[in-house]
Amino acid sequence: MTTVQDYSTDNCSIGRALSVLGEKWTLLVLREVFNGVRRFEEMHERIGAPRQVLSHRLARLVDQGLLYRVPYREPGQRQRYEYRLTEKGIDLYPTLVSLLRWGDRWLVDVEGPAVTLHHKDCGAPVEVVLRCTEGHDVPTARQVRAQPGPGAKLLQDAAR
Amino acid sequence: MTTVQDYSTDNCSIGRALSVLGEKWTLLVLREVFNGVRRFEEMHERIGAPRQVLSHRLARLVDQGLLYRVPYREPGQRQRYEYRLTEKGIDLYPTLVSLLRWGDRWLVDVEGPAVTLHHKDCGAPVEVVLRCTEGHDVPTARQVRAQPGPGAKLLQDAAR
Repeated sequence: MTTVQDYSTDNCSIGRALSVLGEKWTLLVLREVFNGVRRFEEMHERIGAPRQVLSHRLARLVDQGLLYRVPYREPGQRQRYEYRLTEKGIDLYPTLVSLLRWGDRWLVDVEGPAVTLHHKDCGAPVEVVLRCTEGHDVPTARQVRAQPGPGAKLLQDAAR
Repeated sequence: MTTVQDYSTDNCSIGRALSVLGEKWTLLVLREVFNGVRRFEEMHERIGAPRQVLSHRLARLVDQGLLYRVPYREPGQRQRYEYRLTEKGIDLYPTLVSLLRWGDRWLVDVEGPAVTLHHKDCGAPVEVVLRCTEGHDVPTARQVRAQPGPGAKLLQDAAR
């Protein structure tokens, strides 16, 4: 029986996702936009990334279709752009929440987390859970079987 | 009323999580270990990271307590180590699944994804969902309120 280990990682969706997102500043930019911070100067101040790095990451997020730019003009200043999330960008929210919750559990200060997430309707804390489409909770990785999908390429066939 | 924007990002759990995980190879290493690939040579072949980079990332994942090393010896060879997930490492599974699912939706080939995840009990596909502790599904970020947590530091107080 073949397993995922027999197949190429060339078209793995995790690998592809990380080739878009695979370094710290990119995900921190997205965090800020989710928190309503949309302007370069404010992001720069909050994230602490060098200006050139931030500028490059924003351009890449626009190129990749995760953010789009909207012009604005403050009185007496030149036109600038703010950044908003596209549907593709918004769809990364569960990834950011899962990183937040992992950090909350394993890297938190004694005082507790800096930010907590609440369901607007009832106020209860928000968590990330795995669930199958039949509605069963899948609490651990041991209850998940990874299998070759329709795009799987056997290792010997893939261009390595 | 203060919002998360009034508080420092210094102790943000996303930022901390990314300072451990914040580049591509680290998460790809974890992907391989979740898929049962535990030995350096095999990881090197599957991930394609330069040996020195892979070696450095593995050492860091051990230092940070996400992986631990178990010695093994093949006949006629010197003792080597394989890498296994700690509880802290296993706890990143929802993050990897959320990256996979995002990549499946936005970066996939026409043939479909390389890997699919199934609930072992019933075979149905596995998804990542947000849910509050009262049991309500929270399908979008708009239904989530981020608020300053017990460890929140006002911007003017935090060491910037």
